Amino acid sequence: MQCTEHLSDSAVSKANAMKWIAVDWGTSRLRAWLVDGANVVESASSENGMAGLAADGFEPALLALIDPWLESAQDVIACGMVGARQGWVEAPYRTTPCPAAATDLIMAPANDPRLRVNIAPGVSQAAPPDVMRGEETQIAGFLMDLPDFEGVVCLPGTHTKWVHVSASEIVSFRTFMTGEIFALIAEHSVLRHDIGDGWIEDGFLEAVDEAMSRPEALASKLFSLRAESLLEGPAPNAARSRASGLLIGMELAAARPYWLGRDVAILGGGPQSAAYEAALRAQGAPITTASAEAATLRGLIALHNART
Amino acid sequence: MQCTEHLSDSAVSKANAMKWIAVDWGTSRLRAWLVDGANVVESASSENGMAGLAADGFEPALLALIDPWLESAQDVIACGMVGARQGWVEAPYRTTPCPAAATDLIMAPANDPRLRVNIAPGVSQAAPPDVMRGEETQIAGFLMDLPDFEGVVCLPGTHTKWVHVSASEIVSFRTFMTGEIFALIAEHSVLRHDIGDGWIEDGFLEAVDEAMSRPEALASKLFSLRAESLLEGPAPNAARSRASGLLIGMELAAARPYWLGRDVAILGGGPQSAAYEAALRAQGAPITTASAEAATLRGLIALHNART
Repeated sequence: MQCTEHLSDSAVSKANAMKWIAVDWGTSRLRAWLVDGANVVESASSENGMAGLAADGFEPALLALIDPWLESAQDVIACGMVGARQGWVEAPYRTTPCPAAATDLIMAPANDPRLRVNIAPGVSQAAPPDVMRGEETQIAGFLMDLPDFEGVVCLPGTHTKWVHVSASEIVSFRTFMTGEIFALIAEHSVLRHDIGDGWIEDGFLEAVDEAMSRPEALASKLFSLRAESLLEGPAPNAARSRASGLLIGMELAAARPYWLGRDVAILGGGPQSAAYEAALRAQGAPITTASAEAATLRGLIALHNART
Repeated sequence: MQCTEHLSDSAVSKANAMKWIAVDWGTSRLRAWLVDGANVVESASSENGMAGLAADGFEPALLALIDPWLESAQDVIACGMVGARQGWVEAPYRTTPCPAAATDLIMAPANDPRLRVNIAPGVSQAAPPDVMRGEETQIAGFLMDLPDFEGVVCLPGTHTKWVHVSASEIVSFRTFMTGEIFALIAEHSVLRHDIGDGWIEDGFLEAVDEAMSRPEALASKLFSLRAESLLEGPAPNAARSRASGLLIGMELAAARPYWLGRDVAILGGGPQSAAYEAALRAQGAPITTASAEAATLRGLIALHNART
């Protein structure tokens, strides 16, 4: 920038030291932000998620995205599956109860001397056994804006998590494979030709109610969607809404101890979060919502702030 | 055969007329038997199931298997998915309640003048919507041996069916996608590396009990298998047994109105049937078992007998 020409070398160095790189590195996607203090200067993303990378693929995948930023920033703070056993370096789990914001980050080995990559550990729970990687950082970000929040954070996703938060700590949590089961059924099961892309809210909510009352009937009610299509003709939008409602209703029945009588915050965005929100509102649960993407960045900023 | 040389032409023709071909044509497999009256003379099978065949592929697939038999038999009786809309010719469903043994078979169009292929219709149920193709013929075969059976026939499979049978009729039935959901989870989900090939009966039965008490917890208890593997090391046989038990337990909870207080016959064979049997016996249900393959052939014989 023009103005830097007038700064002394040490002032430039200090200004650069303020910049750093936030990285959200999940199973299927890599996102990075160049951050000045707490302000995003630039952002970039790629499909180089953890699942597609070999052990030696992480550094090149990151450099492909952030190399131009390394002139002004070296410190990288990353969260998500990049810290899994199959990630860049394993960042061992902290165990519940623990603060949402981690302080014990793990430095990833790098060949490029410009890189200092610090990876946030995930959180595990002994009983019932459960794990998270990345969601704890989203919760830390959410708590930056609502530091006094007491209640339950619901994070819809492939593996939706319900997290009991109190005094800025993750007290307990539970993961549901609901989203993955829905995707398998919609894309790979005998229902794949019966399930469309559209959405019928009433049909979804009705199926949520049915599943909350009789969750055990899931596997037969799903097959009924196939039979209905054969006997009465296809209704792909209704089938999608019902299949989703049956699965989310089953989850709400099991997660009742989490959401019943507690403040619930949904950290999400997009149609899946909207479905959880509609289903919970229909149960009379008090809901607040916040953007998961914004919470991730805020959480990485929280981790960065804690180090400086 | 040597002896035919001594028979007159008309005697040969009459002897040949006694032979016919029974065909079980499912989604993924084609099996045929050359039958003399009610005795199997030869059998053959191929992987040419309905799912892999275009409309004009059925006749060649059948001829590839039975061509040599057509010197002594022309009549073919077939059951299963071959009569589906995407099969050789659609054999419209009969509706419940109806006799297990169909009499209104549909003739499939054939170019080879030697072929007379009669396809059994499936059975449908209006409410709740449900369909079967093939199982009705298995039940007809089972009833040949136990004509006075009153109770419930359970047919484990990709889509397990529970069928209420009374006075040789299919009164009502319910299909569960349990087997397909298990296969999707074991082969395509995040659990695919955690689920092995072995079996631990105690773990299976414990999971059945858990799921019968809390069927709604399925999606979280499945994820716990992943978390356990990460936190405590892999236990692939236990994981397979538990995943299967959770799913079958959920099904047993929903199918309780079928099996509770009724005689239950399992038509099956193989490990999946054994799992259902163990789970039902643990619930104190009185069980008889019979071979599904034998029942299919017996059912096709019942259909043949009804026509001659």
